[in-house]
Amino acid sequence: MKDAINLDAYEVGYDIPAKPGMNAADIQTPALVLDLDALERNIKKMGDYAKAHGMRHRTHGKMHKSVDVQNLQQELGGACGVCCQKVSEAEVFARGGITDILVSNQVRDPAKIDRLARLPGLGARTIVCVDDIANVAELSAAAQEHGTQIECLVEIDCGAGRCGVTTTADVLEIAKAIDAAPGLKFSGLQAYQGAMQHLDSYDDRKAKIDVAVAMVREAVDALKVEGLDCDIVGGGGTGSYYFESNSGVYNELQCGSYAFMDADYGRILDKDGNRIDRGEWENAFFILTSVMSHAKPDKAIVDAGLKAQSVDSGLPVIFGRDDVEYIKCSDEHGVVADPAGALRINEKLRLVPGHCDPTANVHDWYVGVRGDTVECVWPVSARGRAY
Amino acid sequence: MKDAINLDAYEVGYDIPAKPGMNAADIQTPALVLDLDALERNIKKMGDYAKAHGMRHRTHGKMHKSVDVQNLQQELGGACGVCCQKVSEAEVFARGGITDILVSNQVRDPAKIDRLARLPGLGARTIVCVDDIANVAELSAAAQEHGTQIECLVEIDCGAGRCGVTTTADVLEIAKAIDAAPGLKFSGLQAYQGAMQHLDSYDDRKAKIDVAVAMVREAVDALKVEGLDCDIVGGGGTGSYYFESNSGVYNELQCGSYAFMDADYGRILDKDGNRIDRGEWENAFFILTSVMSHAKPDKAIVDAGLKAQSVDSGLPVIFGRDDVEYIKCSDEHGVVADPAGALRINEKLRLVPGHCDPTANVHDWYVGVRGDTVECVWPVSARGRAY
Repeated sequence: MKDAINLDAYEVGYDIPAKPGMNAADIQTPALVLDLDALERNIKKMGDYAKAHGMRHRTHGKMHKSVDVQNLQQELGGACGVCCQKVSEAEVFARGGITDILVSNQVRDPAKIDRLARLPGLGARTIVCVDDIANVAELSAAAQEHGTQIECLVEIDCGAGRCGVTTTADVLEIAKAIDAAPGLKFSGLQAYQGAMQHLDSYDDRKAKIDVAVAMVREAVDALKVEGLDCDIVGGGGTGSYYFESNSGVYNELQCGSYAFMDADYGRILDKDGNRIDRGEWENAFFILTSVMSHAKPDKAIVDAGLKAQSVDSGLPVIFGRDDVEYIKCSDEHGVVADPAGALRINEKLRLVPGHCDPTANVHDWYVGVRGDTVECVWPVSARGRAY
Repeated sequence: MKDAINLDAYEVGYDIPAKPGMNAADIQTPALVLDLDALERNIKKMGDYAKAHGMRHRTHGKMHKSVDVQNLQQELGGACGVCCQKVSEAEVFARGGITDILVSNQVRDPAKIDRLARLPGLGARTIVCVDDIANVAELSAAAQEHGTQIECLVEIDCGAGRCGVTTTADVLEIAKAIDAAPGLKFSGLQAYQGAMQHLDSYDDRKAKIDVAVAMVREAVDALKVEGLDCDIVGGGGTGSYYFESNSGVYNELQCGSYAFMDADYGRILDKDGNRIDRGEWENAFFILTSVMSHAKPDKAIVDAGLKAQSVDSGLPVIFGRDDVEYIKCSDEHGVVADPAGALRINEKLRLVPGHCDPTANVHDWYVGVRGDTVECVWPVSARGRAY
């Protein structure tokens, strides 16, 4: 790993949960643990898939917020660059040496537009999404002021119900404005169908993506008629990348969760009806937690609650154990049903969190483990950078 | 405010959301904003209440994780000290100059016990909870090794269903063991009924506390027979402090959320059937968010999603607006129903989060605002200190 930070000044148990070389049993909990072998297999597998299907893979940094994980995705998985959601995240990646950055979101605040326009000065190709023609002049003025180029994708709302325009006429109008604006370059389309990624059924997901692909194809064809080619047609997540890869119209994937996996994504089914965390992807991302109280015989209390995870997508699942179940989450406590009284004080459990993105965002550090040994401790580089 | 940190090295929009002296309209979003006038009124009101009822108030630092807020609670609200849930939090408060600290939780990991036993060396009276007689010898050994004294409260589970013993016999056994252990001092009881704080009905909450008070009184009386006096009988939260204050047996409150308020607590009713955020306490704690997309006429997209808050206790409420509603939360986006198309790009809204504690824990900074001006920017000092 390049650019490892110097951890000498950091105190285990206060600033950081572990140091490289420590025994994994001594990690201070609660802590985020990465199973490096599983992580590397996931990253390589998706990279190989993208390459075999002629797709670029712009891995989603909003999920991990880590320069180190992104470097691994580029080195081992052949990722072409990063996408992220906020200008301050993009700055972290640019300052960390990532040279191809898409802010897959709208930037409207004048101060943020100014920062975005300065990103190319840090050596990063800078791409952003637009869904309002008024934004084009704002971005153009900032790029001209800083003597830089901002590449723009028109965002299509192809079903997620958030940002993005919904008609080809709107796509054309904004694309032409971008093409005509000094300092900007029209680079294609952003069309991520975020609302269907977590539907359990493969066929339900496919039906939603078919609609998205039709919208995107219509827009690409209409743009071509106007002489506007799409360098990037981007989208695709862990629950859909095979659809975009075989669409004939998308050329860039933006998967994030595949690398870590979580309990909510793990439950969706592949085309054969198997959960995707039982073969397609491995759990590589865990909250390590310790039993801290067992005053009632059938209940253990663990030290990972809401301050160690987000439960927006459900409670965590205890990895590799069928005899105990995480049943309740409060600020600093998890209640674990332990009907047989199997758990002991200070026993450590690996939790698979419900949702990896906001869970990573609660922590300052990843502890990378190989076998029984801590191999690396990586900062969650863009944690708290939400601006 | 004492001990203000030097913000010169921090960059607005990258490291921090604002600097003192800025106009509040220029705060970079999403950001945590404290209405300092409302915060001070809440803190003074609870302090006055505690004083009038002969109660000490040990304010709960797990809620705000801020040395600055704690200082305000001590200076303006007469708080006797802090309680918190983790040893690493206690270290932040001790290093920040707080001299009376209760870890209102169990500490079982050997490394954490060692750190706890070193806390008095930082000048802090150090108190911890115990619910297992095996823990007594562990704490005693560490205190002796460091030549310090750890005060211990026996924790009673008076209805929360987490840590704590459930019988007076267990209380007595552990209290006697503490009293006999070198390096430890028996200091009383911890009896926080956390499970009832959020029941809407005042009478339902009272019924639960009556059970807790009976358990605590029985334990206090039984301890007295054994010659063990309780210096501290601690408990009480924002939904119950009047019950403990009038119980004749509790002597220390541990309220947290009253200072900030949140949407979930705000909904509970006082004895007259009024919401507690409509008179008893003011909303002093907000997520400031900006409209960043409005491509659909009836929906605005704002820039505060799951990376800016915890939704474990429900979605945020938009403060002071009846015409728009926050209806959906994803990683970096909030969907706001805007049926009349009232919202404009870059318009700022104040969100009252569902649950203040885990929401504060997502952010690195509080922006303290008085009127239209940023008066202070405080670190969320113990953010990420979950060990």
